[in-house]
Amino acid sequence: MSETTLTAATLTQKLELARSASRVLATTKADVKNAALSAIAKAVVAGASRIIPANDLDLANGRENGLSTGLQDRLRLDEARLASLASAVEEIVALTDPVGQNVRGSTLPNGVTLAQVRVPFGVVGAIYEARPNVTIDIAALALKSGNAVVLRGGSAAENTNRVLVELIQDALESVGLPREAVQTIDEFGREGAKQLMQARGYVDVLIPRGSADLINTVVAESKVPVIETGAGVVHVYLDESADIQMATDIVHNAKVQRPSVCNALETLLVHSSAAERLLPTVLGALRSSGVTIHADERALAIFEDAVVATEDDWTTEYMSLDLAVRVVDDLDAALEHIRTYSTHHTESIITNDLARADRFLAEVDSAVVMVNASTRFTDGGEFGFGAEVGISTQKLHARGPMGLSELTSTKWIVRGSGQVRG
Amino acid sequence: MSETTLTAATLTQKLELARSASRVLATTKADVKNAALSAIAKAVVAGASRIIPANDLDLANGRENGLSTGLQDRLRLDEARLASLASAVEEIVALTDPVGQNVRGSTLPNGVTLAQVRVPFGVVGAIYEARPNVTIDIAALALKSGNAVVLRGGSAAENTNRVLVELIQDALESVGLPREAVQTIDEFGREGAKQLMQARGYVDVLIPRGSADLINTVVAESKVPVIETGAGVVHVYLDESADIQMATDIVHNAKVQRPSVCNALETLLVHSSAAERLLPTVLGALRSSGVTIHADERALAIFEDAVVATEDDWTTEYMSLDLAVRVVDDLDAALEHIRTYSTHHTESIITNDLARADRFLAEVDSAVVMVNASTRFTDGGEFGFGAEVGISTQKLHARGPMGLSELTSTKWIVRGSGQVRG
Repeated sequence: MSETTLTAATLTQKLELARSASRVLATTKADVKNAALSAIAKAVVAGASRIIPANDLDLANGRENGLSTGLQDRLRLDEARLASLASAVEEIVALTDPVGQNVRGSTLPNGVTLAQVRVPFGVVGAIYEARPNVTIDIAALALKSGNAVVLRGGSAAENTNRVLVELIQDALESVGLPREAVQTIDEFGREGAKQLMQARGYVDVLIPRGSADLINTVVAESKVPVIETGAGVVHVYLDESADIQMATDIVHNAKVQRPSVCNALETLLVHSSAAERLLPTVLGALRSSGVTIHADERALAIFEDAVVATEDDWTTEYMSLDLAVRVVDDLDAALEHIRTYSTHHTESIITNDLARADRFLAEVDSAVVMVNASTRFTDGGEFGFGAEVGISTQKLHARGPMGLSELTSTKWIVRGSGQVRG
Repeated sequence: MSETTLTAATLTQKLELARSASRVLATTKADVKNAALSAIAKAVVAGASRIIPANDLDLANGRENGLSTGLQDRLRLDEARLASLASAVEEIVALTDPVGQNVRGSTLPNGVTLAQVRVPFGVVGAIYEARPNVTIDIAALALKSGNAVVLRGGSAAENTNRVLVELIQDALESVGLPREAVQTIDEFGREGAKQLMQARGYVDVLIPRGSADLINTVVAESKVPVIETGAGVVHVYLDESADIQMATDIVHNAKVQRPSVCNALETLLVHSSAAERLLPTVLGALRSSGVTIHADERALAIFEDAVVATEDDWTTEYMSLDLAVRVVDDLDAALEHIRTYSTHHTESIITNDLARADRFLAEVDSAVVMVNASTRFTDGGEFGFGAEVGISTQKLHARGPMGLSELTSTKWIVRGSGQVRG
């Protein structure tokens, strides 16, 4: 263990060490970064005897402090989960290193060449909740893209995270990389998170991962640029001409396959002329899979096996087997509903009318807009990016599924032979 | 004049109108946007009889309030300046519309097609100082890229800006576009600027243009994502092997051609082994052009016609015929100096040593890094982007010269034929 981790460092000292480490990582070749990731994957499995007791301690503290069983489950690491974490890290090894990729370039009439190439951000900050898997996940993504990372996990996972970061640091050292490329600032508590959000110049970008509340707080308070991954109040709109089988399959897949994720369907809109034809079959299939239907008055008149929807239902990301359903007069009304309630994540239209499909794609202002496809396709893995950093619902820098290249910036390389500007 | 501009609108009402207008603009074809820009260019010239009296009033108020002559000059619009503003708008007409451009795409094994296309941000906010040319400039760039824009100019230019915005709105109306696509919120004063920085959900991105103080304030206070254009403490490093003629030409061009801009040279670093060979000629040429040399002790021992540099000189963006000069032991010391004092805008090495050129390009963490070229090439026009929105020194979204495409976001268009996720 290096001297710096033995002495109690101030947060600023830690950030300065992260900055130094980031300079080493920025020019580290892909094979060395991959060796570090493989060492981390091995350490996550081999270190179970250190990780699990620390995790047990956090779980015991959590129970004492009244942590909900749901949060306890997210906090828990066992051997199976560690193995799955390790294999996720191995998958990142297999991805192409984005650093050094040429984005565009040209040669000026005077012979000066321009090349815009991908470079790491430098130091990435992450603020997240008591989910220790995020510690490994974010560290691996940041390292692969050449970034140092400063982690602020939930205090309820502090003991687990400390052990995980030590194992990562040992792995880094084993391949000759600086330990300080991955650091935790959990020991500084809430004050540490606040300082991290103020650390312009030390931290290049901050990624909040977790609840809408956490993300909103970071967005509001941070002076460091933030990459926001947002909630998904995802809509499917069944147009007049929707094929009943296609509508049934897509709605069922979008709602039922994995209801707890952000690309799952939350609100179904149906054209009034098609509601009687479509709703009994579409909603019937959902009821058979245990979905609770929250229907507006007009939907309820057609499909009775439902509860009455309130205004709250249109804004809710259920993340459960619940679906809000509303009958709308036409495409305009559907677009207006989406404009009002969408979180700009993913919306899909089911239609056979080309002009309406085009209008929907053009006018819906979301990261991903679809025609005749399940909203569950909004996913870095499905899009072929390999690992997914998250799904951005902001418009700056990255929008939609974020892969490794979204963890990089660019730099212009200009090569001349003495040219001056005329 | 429409009803909405006759009644006193609240700031929130104005932002809502901007949002509505942005939806129209997002799907407006390039030829209509170009017609609006041509109408604006004509109005800027034809409207001189309204613009210049309003500008005279601002100037008179400015003199009364002790506005410096430099700021008065930036505030002043005369017929020649209006003609030049109009021709800048006509140049934007000639640029390719970035909206709808395909960034990347693919077809998944299941037949689903993905296309990432450029879309406007939506509503762009601009906060700037008493330079009414920025009103026209930003409005034209925003409109061309399909964005509505909300302008907060310096209160010292309030009368001028009000007339300019009315002329722009009339031009928009003349081609059937909503007047509210370009609005000023100057009437709300400083409180308006504060509210604009809090207007998440209404404003998609905020662009501060002006002094470092203004930019820092916006970055610190804004909850809306900011695109930052920064100051340039730009460095040239003369390596041991630098050709004396090339060094002289590039340093002279970088410092003297236009000292008041952000890509002009501010600090010259010289390898100690080459200082005696290079400095007399390089600095002699600058002195002949009236440049004041601020030299460190070692440079002063070689070139006496200079003043003594202090710590402040390393951090100063002179924007004038002044140059800080420092002799460094080697490339490492040059890199260390740049790391400490650079604003991450542009740095150039003059060398014939390939390995050192590569190290400089790899290790200097700036938007633009150069070998054997003048720093004055860091410019949207020189890079072939046409109009320049500014030069970003941040790492998120855009880095270096920003063209029209940097005023856009993207959106994923997914087309299926009933596919669901397995």
